[in-house]
Amino acid sequence: MVNVPKQVDHAARRAEIAEALTRLTATRGLEGVSLRHVAAEAGMSMGLVQHYFKTKDEMLLFAVERRSQVYEERLKARLAAGELPSAPKAILRAIMTEILPLDERSRGDWLMGVAFFIRAISDPSFAAAYTEGVPQLFELFAVLIRQGQEAGEVDKSADPEHEAAILWAIADSQGTNIVMKHRTPDEVVSTVDYHLDRLFGAGSASAG
Amino acid sequence: MVNVPKQVDHAARRAEIAEALTRLTATRGLEGVSLRHVAAEAGMSMGLVQHYFKTKDEMLLFAVERRSQVYEERLKARLAAGELPSAPKAILRAIMTEILPLDERSRGDWLMGVAFFIRAISDPSFAAAYTEGVPQLFELFAVLIRQGQEAGEVDKSADPEHEAAILWAIADSQGTNIVMKHRTPDEVVSTVDYHLDRLFGAGSASAG
Repeated sequence: MVNVPKQVDHAARRAEIAEALTRLTATRGLEGVSLRHVAAEAGMSMGLVQHYFKTKDEMLLFAVERRSQVYEERLKARLAAGELPSAPKAILRAIMTEILPLDERSRGDWLMGVAFFIRAISDPSFAAAYTEGVPQLFELFAVLIRQGQEAGEVDKSADPEHEAAILWAIADSQGTNIVMKHRTPDEVVSTVDYHLDRLFGAGSASAG
Repeated sequence: MVNVPKQVDHAARRAEIAEALTRLTATRGLEGVSLRHVAAEAGMSMGLVQHYFKTKDEMLLFAVERRSQVYEERLKARLAAGELPSAPKAILRAIMTEILPLDERSRGDWLMGVAFFIRAISDPSFAAAYTEGVPQLFELFAVLIRQGQEAGEVDKSADPEHEAAILWAIADSQGTNIVMKHRTPDEVVSTVDYHLDRLFGAGSASAG
């Protein structure tokens, strides 16, 4: 007997499709993925997938926006559960390691972000969506650095805007190093810690 | 009268085709460029272009390898001409600003690099070529940082490998910020200087 639920959970189906796209992107790159592949991976008919997304672009846009939401919710949940220390340095480290493609799952997310960026270069509608996320993250980084300064952990002479750009660069670019196997995830995380230790090293020198 | 040189300069023609591909990539993105577009932009017949490159992939591979050579030769020429100060900090700054897409020309080079990276994700033959260049640059950065340490300009406690990865990240990732108009070229160069001043700031404190 086929189990047909009366109420279709459209949000869940969209999410399943986005997950299927992410998994396929991780293994073969977005260019090599068709709507047909996504349907097969999600265990749905082509018609059902197309009911939700007419084009791969629509699917990509949804998947990337959903990824941002999931990131944000996961971070909030970890904060609420007391899993994250409240110190700015620890929060910065958590965000940076969340962004980096350290496992197969985040590798898919990361490659999706790259594909999205490529589309954004030539398509203004994608660029608009892309342009919203990054400045928000820059601002969050700058806020955390200012908190570090107020707590006496970050040197007063540090410029929060420059430091935010550098932190983002370290997370963003090192994703490439991992995916291209120039550096191992461990090496990359060790560089993140090295830089955060420098930035927050003023704690022992100037606090108190 | 048509001027037909007896000796065809094949290297120059290949270079012209690569330049045409780079200009088109800067304005419309590599995905939107066909062999036909390249032929028109280079002012050559399709047949002539295909005599040198059978596929867009071949052309892309050549263009990216040529770009590395041009960068290297330009840097060497600037060094030989005494245009670059010999100090490690100044050389690092010159390399980083050379990589960044600060004008239309380097924007084309940079977008080509992105397109190349995308191909490298899914194609091992591209990955091999891609993988050669970056570690060489990391090693050069590390050498310059060690020279800075020997000159007493960089703190002895700095780790050249981590610092090299961070310098590369700052140049690489901020290229995206410029292309996506999150930050202006001036802002990005100012972050490069900010970081180099920190890294080489030990000069006044520990030298002598």
